[in-house]
Amino acid sequence: MWQFVDIIEFAGTFAFAISGIRLAAAKQFDWFGALVIGLVTAVGGGTIRDLMLNVTPFWMMNISYLACTSLALLVVVVYRQILVRHNYTFFTFDTIGLALFTVVGVEKTLGAGFPYWVALTMGTITGSAGGMIRDTLINEIPLVFRKELYAIACLLGGLVYWLSDLAKMPQEVSQISAAVTVIVVRLLAVKYHISLPKLNGVDKIEEE
Amino acid sequence: MWQFVDIIEFAGTFAFAISGIRLAAAKQFDWFGALVIGLVTAVGGGTIRDLMLNVTPFWMMNISYLACTSLALLVVVVYRQILVRHNYTFFTFDTIGLALFTVVGVEKTLGAGFPYWVALTMGTITGSAGGMIRDTLINEIPLVFRKELYAIACLLGGLVYWLSDLAKMPQEVSQISAAVTVIVVRLLAVKYHISLPKLNGVDKIEEE
Amino acid sequence: MWQFVDIIEFAGTFAFAISGIRLAAAKQFDWFGALVIGLVTAVGGGTIRDLMLNVTPFWMMNISYLACTSLALLVVVVYRQILVRHNYTFFTFDTIGLALFTVVGVEKTLGAGFPYWVALTMGTITGSAGGMIRDTLINEIPLVFRKELYAIACLLGGLVYWLSDLAKMPQEVSQISAAVTVIVVRLLAVKYHISLPKLNGVDKIEEE
Repeated sequence: MWQFVDIIEFAGTFAFAISGIRLAAAKQFDWFGALVIGLVTAVGGGTIRDLMLNVTPFWMMNISYLACTSLALLVVVVYRQILVRHNYTFFTFDTIGLALFTVVGVEKTLGAGFPYWVALTMGTITGSAGGMIRDTLINEIPLVFRKELYAIACLLGGLVYWLSDLAKMPQEVSQISAAVTVIVVRLLAVKYHISLPKLNGVDKIEEE
Repeated sequence: MWQFVDIIEFAGTFAFAISGIRLAAAKQFDWFGALVIGLVTAVGGGTIRDLMLNVTPFWMMNISYLACTSLALLVVVVYRQILVRHNYTFFTFDTIGLALFTVVGVEKTLGAGFPYWVALTMGTITGSAGGMIRDTLINEIPLVFRKELYAIACLLGGLVYWLSDLAKMPQEVSQISAAVTVIVVRLLAVKYHISLPKLNGVDKIEEE
Repeated sequence: MWQFVDIIEFAGTFAFAISGIRLAAAKQFDWFGALVIGLVTAVGGGTIRDLMLNVTPFWMMNISYLACTSLALLVVVVYRQILVRHNYTFFTFDTIGLALFTVVGVEKTLGAGFPYWVALTMGTITGSAGGMIRDTLINEIPLVFRKELYAIACLLGGLVYWLSDLAKMPQEVSQISAAVTVIVVRLLAVKYHISLPKLNGVDKIEEE
């Protein structure tokens, strides 16, 4: 009796875990460290969302998220030489994960009775906070702060969900149109190197 | 029907958001990254406090905190050349924010039924944890660990609140005397370069 | 009326606080910064566990954890020259703390009604997440991702607890055998430089 939301949460978990494990491998982490980074990338955003919604973190209710991350580690260990040559595949995974996590985050927040502006925020957190924790743990400045419209794609996807819901569309239409929005925005941003403007011109500030 | 606590939380949010956005700008973040850093600086300490008190994070109940951070971003984008020449103004903002957040943290913790020593800790967390998360995300060692009496000012302010309460003062007196204590301690510490002693002499330690 | 669990939580707190304060000292933090790092190292893992279990963080219910960390700071300040020459002593402390925290984490999670695989995860988080936060705050890549079987020792200890419980052993036997497992695994790993394999061979990855 899997629901659509379960399936997309699982697929997104695998994609995000792979992205974390590959970065951990590049930093010479051992298997366990890679597993932790994969797990944090995959479930970190949803865990922060669930703590803020005051519900038990989703991955503690169903062993499939831990199992999925372990499977991702196995895939990286066994197929690592192949994986190096498939950056594009992983970019695709990562983008689909982003779309799916955003939709899950929006729906779970609405389901908890919060208004839409909280749901948009939580959709964005679900999609991008895992990557932020991942980058902080591997001692890098989070890519999401400088990368092509990563979190903005979540935000726009959430907006489309909202508009679709306002227009009384069935839930499946809202879900799919939101996910497609995230994917299209992210693909176009990467293809055409679209970024938000940087906040330069104030870089001579020193702390008092 | 705004309460005094609402007003000071709002003013503190603006001051802290500006401080985060300016540091993000110095690191060449894009607008969205700067917004996130501003938001984390402004609401991070209070969010950790609320999660520990097991209540819904304050900024999820009232859109004004997100709006206030967005306004702070707009101000930095529009007036950035001017801002560079007003470090002192921002130091003032930051100090007032610190004082106000400390008072809010102490009061909310007491209101949740915890003893004073927890309230002091939560006041300090409310005032300084947002800056700690901000510095971690921009990949710097948190300033609060080396800066002139930053968190100590929160702690002393909380102590004054406690003493004032023990002396049966009206709540407004406790609030104002605590806030003034934070501001005065911080101003004196910066003016006279007062710091806590460093823990040197053990710097040849290596991890096993 | 202290329970066994209280005593081991207290001893572990002291050991972990010392480990955090020594690293903070090596980074030239001031006393307050060292206290915060000590506290985060000591109570960080248990706090994350308690937030996920949706209970009030343990250190907010009993002032002894803050008192214990303050005592650890005092010990480092007063005896720092001596401490430098006793790395082995602190390694012992750290290992005992790891064992004790793992057992506490497993038991508290089972007590909250979660299945064993969640308890194993929480035991590992209780033992190792404080050190991860510590290392992130001092701007280092967490040692746990590259160190000799640190978190794996927690995991194996939790497994032994589980097996002992399955075999209907009394609770004390499960506790002690789990703790001994953590300590023995960690000692052997350090003595014989046993590590998990690294995930190399994929280090030429660049982010899209």
